[in-house]
Amino acid sequence: MQQVAASTAFIGSALPLRRAPSNRAGRLPRASLVCRAQKQDGQTGGKRLVASSAATLDAPVEEGYQSVWTASYDFDNESPELTKSWKKTMKVAVTGAAGQISNHLLFMLASGEVFGRDQPIQLQLLGSERSREALEGVAMELEDSLYPLLREVQLGIDPRQVFEGADWALLIGAKPRGPGMERKDLLDINGQIFAEQGRALNDVASRDCKMLVVGNPCNTNALIGMANAPDLPKRNWHALTRLDENRAKCQLALKSGKFYTSVTNMTIWGNHSTTQVPDFVNAKIGGKRVPAVVKDVQWLKEEFTPKVANRGGALIKKWGRSSAASTAVSIADHLRSLYTPTPPGDCFSTGVYTEGNPYGVDEDLIFSMPCRSDGDGDYEIIDDFVIDDWLQAKIKETEEELLKERDCVGHLIPGATRAVCMITEDTMLPGEA
Amino acid sequence: MQQVAASTAFIGSALPLRRAPSNRAGRLPRASLVCRAQKQDGQTGGKRLVASSAATLDAPVEEGYQSVWTASYDFDNESPELTKSWKKTMKVAVTGAAGQISNHLLFMLASGEVFGRDQPIQLQLLGSERSREALEGVAMELEDSLYPLLREVQLGIDPRQVFEGADWALLIGAKPRGPGMERKDLLDINGQIFAEQGRALNDVASRDCKMLVVGNPCNTNALIGMANAPDLPKRNWHALTRLDENRAKCQLALKSGKFYTSVTNMTIWGNHSTTQVPDFVNAKIGGKRVPAVVKDVQWLKEEFTPKVANRGGALIKKWGRSSAASTAVSIADHLRSLYTPTPPGDCFSTGVYTEGNPYGVDEDLIFSMPCRSDGDGDYEIIDDFVIDDWLQAKIKETEEELLKERDCVGHLIPGATRAVCMITEDTMLPGEA
Repeated sequence: MQQVAASTAFIGSALPLRRAPSNRAGRLPRASLVCRAQKQDGQTGGKRLVASSAATLDAPVEEGYQSVWTASYDFDNESPELTKSWKKTMKVAVTGAAGQISNHLLFMLASGEVFGRDQPIQLQLLGSERSREALEGVAMELEDSLYPLLREVQLGIDPRQVFEGADWALLIGAKPRGPGMERKDLLDINGQIFAEQGRALNDVASRDCKMLVVGNPCNTNALIGMANAPDLPKRNWHALTRLDENRAKCQLALKSGKFYTSVTNMTIWGNHSTTQVPDFVNAKIGGKRVPAVVKDVQWLKEEFTPKVANRGGALIKKWGRSSAASTAVSIADHLRSLYTPTPPGDCFSTGVYTEGNPYGVDEDLIFSMPCRSDGDGDYEIIDDFVIDDWLQAKIKETEEELLKERDCVGHLIPGATRAVCMITEDTMLPGEA
Repeated sequence: MQQVAASTAFIGSALPLRRAPSNRAGRLPRASLVCRAQKQDGQTGGKRLVASSAATLDAPVEEGYQSVWTASYDFDNESPELTKSWKKTMKVAVTGAAGQISNHLLFMLASGEVFGRDQPIQLQLLGSERSREALEGVAMELEDSLYPLLREVQLGIDPRQVFEGADWALLIGAKPRGPGMERKDLLDINGQIFAEQGRALNDVASRDCKMLVVGNPCNTNALIGMANAPDLPKRNWHALTRLDENRAKCQLALKSGKFYTSVTNMTIWGNHSTTQVPDFVNAKIGGKRVPAVVKDVQWLKEEFTPKVANRGGALIKKWGRSSAASTAVSIADHLRSLYTPTPPGDCFSTGVYTEGNPYGVDEDLIFSMPCRSDGDGDYEIIDDFVIDDWLQAKIKETEEELLKERDCVGHLIPGATRAVCMITEDTMLPGEA
């Protein structure tokens, strides 16, 4: 078996290619610099330049160099005993790859702790022209970390190229809200990004590509992406609510004075926003329903949810930046939950498409629900959660918010009836715009 | 068994204590806010304030609040099957804990991937007054990541308090070189920090505490720390050269077109600086000596070493900040190497005290050498490396640099004969000052 241990590519826009200086080529006998044109689908007209990685990464990058740039190490496998149990390489595309969350996540992915020690991966990293050198820096650090499972790294700025063949797309990048920007402006500006990325995934990703949207507003961004990727399974879209779930478990553990691991069956319902519903009705502590353990109903109803929803804002206030590390941990948790059989009586939260959902939620939303998995990467919505009146009212509230968000992005959803954007209030998670 | 799942403390200077508002106390029944005075050793007169964690971390911190601050969750263990195989909690002190390297490392430590899934740990984090809120942010993110093995987190700014009872001290924090600062100034300013930390470790750490110095100039900082900690075993001091080793392995893998894992017996000799000696004479690729595989002697002698030594600088140039993630990975690698039996015929690099070394290096330096471990946390220097003339000359060069560094810090080494500081050239690793 030949192994591609790691490789770096720059996949870029339709600007004219510049060939990297040929003297770089001589440095690596196997991963030599190759410039080859690759016909794209016409929309971008991009080309692909295959370049050596380590040889070029520490060399100065040419000004304006902005196209598919691949450095490939295609190595002799001297360790057949290491690789004989390895699965087929998984292609994982990550957007916002030069950002803080990715800077934690990529190393977790490459180490094998997320997808398993027998799962080689190829990272396909999307950045922006501005972040290109930072992306190259990340690729160099991944190299220096000697992860045998990391077989290739590609870098680019055109989603249509970066997403090619992806088995997973972790959509982390989104524009933060600028000064004076209203929430509906943010919905629009990020919605456009996710519409483009949805189309790109539809055109070039694996036909069973799974998508996890982290960039906010993540539920509605996922809805837009999904609507623009009609050929991909709708159930494959996820919006991240695992950080909320983790925070909710943490708060219940603290409140009850029990191990984190004692808190099970914890669901976040609805939107990853301040209207989210951390469900203490169905959650359990030490196998007992939460209200039987935490007898402080007022705390559960009035303090618990804001504690969870405002945790990110509290963190921002502490140190002026968002919770990159714990977000990355929660993304890893999310992915692991899909590749590990869910223990009986437990669940995990993920924002998924609501079509056919058993809880009467509008059937065209991305809505966080209690799910379980057989460990095959797929999931099912658990259908026997108790919805009492309190929970029902809260779920209604977060559903209504998502319906309003959907109304604001009708112009980004092919075939949608245009509605009027009625969002005036600010329900973004503080600090997580 | 009761478990302390995680707890946060602020251990500070000798400023007058301010009691946290008592209304915080009511929020957590078990992890309640306690203010207790604790007699310190007289040098600092510090006191210890035990405070609840989650309850206070998201509450505004009082101005000037600057003393031992502990938030403790002392939880019922509902998972005896989880913990019955757990070892005794290891206390790991980390300096520069609010910095980028730590921001990666702490999550690796807490997850169990470094010390093992049966090794609960207590993190004792040293920051500065300026970084206090950032430290609290890190503690909050660690909470939200739900690591069962993480049993306590303490935060503080006084090493004499933070290092109390530490089994490991990971000394990451150091002052970077400011504009116009000469290398000898840097040696002095950081040397003072490490002299203080050495004294603190000597007074309060576990009698078998192990120290890993990451803050540069790490070899000489370790020497200073060691000299100021006469009651701790000198062999327990390490200076990090594992990132250099990893980079060297990466470059040899690239050059030879082989798996990373094919490169073994890779040693860095000497100083973590541009005079370091990545040893291609003894290193092997696929079981063969490197020169038998990479037949380009000129590359090995003239390009390989600068490629390794200048990698950090190349990264800085790429994205304007240092290689925090891969440094954290290499710290984790370093620690794992001490707790995993070294495979026969392999080694790892660490800067250790040279007393009694088999290679004729001056016996009062911290010098990177080929080492092996039985996996018990201790190590031995491998004594059968071939030192040819080329290697001998290179080792001499890095030794001479370390002798010069030692001459410049005689005022920080108790009992040292004063020598004249002769350092004029700049041998810092680029970007890693």
